[in-house]
Order: sequence, then C-alpha cells, then structure tokens
Amino acid sequence: MTGTDRQGYYSHAQQGEHEYFDLGGFVLQSGYTLPNATLAYRTHGTLNAVKDNLVLFPHMYSGTPSSLDDYIGPGKPLDTDEYFVVCPGQLGGGLSSSPSNTPAPFDRGQFPAVAIADDVLAQYRLVSERFGVEQLHAVLGWSMGAQQTYEWAVRFPDMVPRAAAFAGTAKTPVHNQVFIDLHLELLRSDPAFADGFYTDSADVHLGLRRHAIAFSLEGFTHEWYRGEHWRALGFATSNDFRQSFIRGYFAPMDPNNLITQANKWWAGDISPHAGGSLPAALGRITAHFFVVPFGGDSFFPVEDCENEAGHLPHGELRVIDTPAGHFAMFGLRPQDTERISAVMTEMLSSPGYTI
Amino acid sequence: MTGTDRQGYYSHAQQGEHEYFDLGGFVLQSGYTLPNATLAYRTHGTLNAVKDNLVLFPHMYSGTPSSLDDYIGPGKPLDTDEYFVVCPGQLGGGLSSSPSNTPAPFDRGQFPAVAIADDVLAQYRLVSERFGVEQLHAVLGWSMGAQQTYEWAVRFPDMVPRAAAFAGTAKTPVHNQVFIDLHLELLRSDPAFADGFYTDSADVHLGLRRHAIAFSLEGFTHEWYRGEHWRALGFATSNDFRQSFIRGYFAPMDPNNLITQANKWWAGDISPHAGGSLPAALGRITAHFFVVPFGGDSFFPVEDCENEAGHLPHGELRVIDTPAGHFAMFGLRPQDTERISAVMTEMLSSPGYTI
Repeated sequence: MTGTDRQGYYSHAQQGEHEYFDLGGFVLQSGYTLPNATLAYRTHGTLNAVKDNLVLFPHMYSGTPSSLDDYIGPGKPLDTDEYFVVCPGQLGGGLSSSPSNTPAPFDRGQFPAVAIADDVLAQYRLVSERFGVEQLHAVLGWSMGAQQTYEWAVRFPDMVPRAAAFAGTAKTPVHNQVFIDLHLELLRSDPAFADGFYTDSADVHLGLRRHAIAFSLEGFTHEWYRGEHWRALGFATSNDFRQSFIRGYFAPMDPNNLITQANKWWAGDISPHAGGSLPAALGRITAHFFVVPFGGDSFFPVEDCENEAGHLPHGELRVIDTPAGHFAMFGLRPQDTERISAVMTEMLSSPGYTI
Repeated sequence: MTGTDRQGYYSHAQQGEHEYFDLGGFVLQSGYTLPNATLAYRTHGTLNAVKDNLVLFPHMYSGTPSSLDDYIGPGKPLDTDEYFVVCPGQLGGGLSSSPSNTPAPFDRGQFPAVAIADDVLAQYRLVSERFGVEQLHAVLGWSMGAQQTYEWAVRFPDMVPRAAAFAGTAKTPVHNQVFIDLHLELLRSDPAFADGFYTDSADVHLGLRRHAIAFSLEGFTHEWYRGEHWRALGFATSNDFRQSFIRGYFAPMDPNNLITQANKWWAGDISPHAGGSLPAALGRITAHFFVVPFGGDSFFPVEDCENEAGHLPHGELRVIDTPAGHFAMFGLRPQDTERISAVMTEMLSSPGYTI
C-alpha cells in the first residue's frame, strides 16, 4: 500500500503530504499478524550525510503526523535547517494501518489491539531500514507521543541519547484509565456505532459529540473556564468554545480509530521491560530525558511525572504551569508555546547520553 | 400525601423513617405549579421550648435525608442531646415530590425543573409553619447541601446566624457544569431511558452504570487511585472498588430523580439576589459562615471556595486536604470524618451573626 493516499479526513488533502513505509505482515504484541501493514510518516528537512540529525516526533491521541507542524520549520525549535524531523503516524491513527483503512478480517470493529510497543517497533524499522539511521538525535512527543518516547528510550537505549516527554507518563495513571473507560463508553454509546460496523463515521455523530464532552472536561483545567481563557481564541461563551473547538475537532474522526488509540493509551506501561517494576524500567533509560508535565493536567498529573522523573538516571524535570492543562501543546496560548519550545530547544542542544 | 411511604429504594424500609410536610400547590421558580407537593424530612432530637436549637441539614446529590445520619446523634457533632436536627429531602430526591412519585402530568420525564431556591422556600415553610421556628441555630450541608446552605444564608439572613458549606459553592463553577452535562448525557444515553418514560428504573441499568463511571473519575482525586486508598475499604482492585462501591451506590436510584437534581446543581447561583453580582450576593450574607472545601475536589475546587469566602463578611475558611476529594464526606476515611466533625462542632458553638 506504499504511497496510497487515504480517504476523507485522513487524506493528504486534509492532513498534508505523507509517505508510507511497507511493514509487510506485521506481528503485533497482541499476537495477531496485520497483513500488508503500513506506517505513514511525514518528514521535514534533510537527513545529513552522517545520518545523525534525525529527530523522531510521534503524535498524540486523535492526531496525525501533521498535528504538530507548528513546532517544526526554519527558526522553530525543531529547526529544519539543522534537523531531519520524522513524524510517524500511530497505528490506528488513520494514516498508518487503522480500522478505517484495513480490509477484512481486520477492518472496522475487528481491528486487532495494538500497543505503544508496536508503534515503536514499526518506527524502528522505518528509521533503520528506510533511512539507515543507527542513532537518533532525539525523540520527543506529547501525551501518547510521550508514551512512545518512553518506550523508545527503554527499548532502544543505545539509539536515544536525548528525549522529551511532554504531558505524558511511562505508565498510565489509574485515574487516567478511568477517564479512558469513560470516553470509550461515550463513543460506543451511540446506537449508530453498531459495535464498530458502521459504514460512515459521520453516522456516529452522537457518539463523537458525547466523547467530545469528556475532553471539554478533562482536557482543560478549572482555571481555563473560571478565567474564561477561551476568550483569547475568539469564542463568545464557553459553550461556543466547546462546540466549535472541541466538538468541531473530533467530529470528522473515525470512532474505531479513536478506540484503537485509546486502548493503547490505557495500557501504556514500560514496566514489563523490567519484570513489572516501573522504577527499574525507568532506571534503564540512559537518555538525557526531559520530563515536562503541564500544571493542572488531569490526564498525566505533575505528581506522577515527578515520581517518574525521580527514577531517571539523567532525568530533567521542567514543569509548565498553564490554565490550558493537558491541551497546552495545541498552541492555544502563545506563552505556553514559547515555554514548550524553549524546553524543546534545551533538550535538542543538550549533551546526549547512551549506554 | 402526608405520611405516605414511598416505593422501593425511596421507601422507609430502605431509607429509615421520615415524615412529610404538605406544601399544597407549590409554585416553582420555573413557573409551574406542582400539585399536592410534599417535603419529606427526617428529624433527630427534640425541639426545645424556646425553639432555638433547630439545625437544618439538607443533603447532597443522589442522597436522601438519612444519608448523613452518621454525623448525628448523642456525642456526634450534631449532638441530639443539644440540637433538634432536621434533614429535609430535596425536591427530586425521591422522598419529597419527585419524578418517581408524582402523578401525570408531572410524572417521570415531564417533571418540571426545580431550583435550589425551591428547596429552600419549601424548607422555610416547614420550619416556620410546622415547627414555629423563627431563627435556626444553624444550617449546613455538603455539595448540593452546601448550595442550599448558601441560598438559605442569602435569602433569610435574619434566620441564619451560623452556617457551614462543605465542598460546595454559592455559584456552580463552569468546569463543574461541563461535568454535569457529561453525566446527564451518560444517564440519557441508555435507549431504555426512553426520554424519561421507562416503567422501571432498573431497566435503565446501562445509563446508571455509565453515569457511575463519571463519578468514579471526578468524585475522587488522582491520589485516591495512585495511593490505592480504596484498599482501606476492603476492595481487591480499583475495578472492584468502582463496581461494588460506585456502581452499587447508584444502581438502585431513579434516573429521572437524578436528572432533576443534577439540573438544580448545574444552575446553582445566588448572584440573582444581588442583580447578578456574586461578590455582592455573598456580601449580603450576615451569618458566621464556614467555607470548607476539600483539597483535590474536582467539582468545587479549593480556589473557587477561597474566592467566595473572601466576599463573606463573617467568612471562615477551613480547607480539608484528603485523597478522597469531593467524596470525603461519605465517611470513607476516619481521619476525614474527624476533621469534618471538628469543623461542624466549631461552627455550631461559634458566635452567631444576623442582620
């Protein structure tokens, strides 16, 4: 399927140009073989001759490889004059192999469970086989991108000298799992969802709308609403913001794709790398690792990030307080974007450590 | 309907003995007249001869007048050797007039909207007409009980010398309204809900289960799950706790009753008493008023409570930090119950202020 464009919301017309890496029959952690699996990716800049300037930037839940383009380019923290930035699409993200683009018997409601490790193993093949890169300059990500960042750092410590995890953890907190249970229930509650065997994702508009309420609640802080910070985005009321911004954002997406990603998010955990001990797994990470929680984040609280950072041999903690909470990296407030960019720059130019 | 017992979950067999006050045709804030309206109440102790020992203790969302019995009795903070404690049932609470016990054309899905002010006006008639009391010793409550406490204090300042609002605000925060939107959506999502015209509330088990997830999420803090504080209650896993405790608690309730209460909760706001200014409305409260937020409460955050307390002429702020968050008053942790009881005792024995 290399080079094949996707349909609708997940098309190049909507998401910008991408390329595709053929994974062949890809054996998943769940024990299923995904036939003709593909990994979509978007690149910025040029791989240098010595192949030491690749920065890997996987995306968050509901995102695509172009979601975080604003942090990339000449003069941006991911400066394309210096770095070759590779933004891989999540399995289940709609551009890589996903419920929305895979034929039977793995289509729609019968797409197999995928894991954060599956994404990282697919990305490993991309950077090794397609680009011949033996060591990344860095890996970084936000939310589910942070989960992939942790998995990269513990699984391939010799390849990851630098890393930054924004608003994400190495192991999903239980409270966050309760949120995921809730938002999955909301998506599935729509009778039109039909156990995942709808013909058009737009028919599941009720489930998508309900699901959006959960993100209106937990994606932002109390202060976001108390201080009416949505006003700076040009909305008239909080309901206007919720409808136009949050509902509008999720409305065109595919529910099965979202569910596939959410189940991965729920199960995020690097502790199996060390017999179930999270501190021991974190202790194996040799990278210069920047842990960047967002103050007031209801998904990945500062406390959990601090706890994890304490077990990283070369951990650096940078807390960014913001009323935008988990969604700070969406670029909603210029002051948040500045602080996030500053940490990216600090990490990218920091000394790297490997085994 | 005075003296008529209710059915099922809302019966005396389930909820303990109650009495009923006949409100007659009761005109609601929403402009509807509820025919033969009744206010259920439960009393503890004895009204003294000079009628100055009545303590009013309205209940929270989903509760009944017996929900907080544990704080009442000889040697308890609401000491029945000293106080005559009156626990009124919310309109919509299942014992007072509610969707579950009102005949057509106000039954089930067509019960009219009620407001916090309706509860307080009904309670005013109870204490004035039935008990001949002109001034309460105090009013206090938790969550929606706190909302009623604020409404009492601003509406009848000459009757309320002392008050305590536990984990509640004078105006519902917007973030909390998003939560209420979410949990209403969950209740209504069950096809068996049938727009409120189900015949047996047990048929709406899917909606009740979904609704319970929202409270598993926001009723507790991250630390509740992170620190596995549910273990002290004897549960084996967090799922075990969520199913047995949270789902089990809500399962026997009537969805229309919950929705009626939730809409009241959403609209909680004393600012109309002062032309829409919350600070001005708070400034009219003459009572010695104890504001008692619970640390980590996702419904009524400490910040909102602090802001409101700052406008109370005789406000006292007592923050109770606890991993149980909003649900601390359920008696889940003895140390929380002790601190809550201590504030109750302090408030009840404090100097009272009136106009």
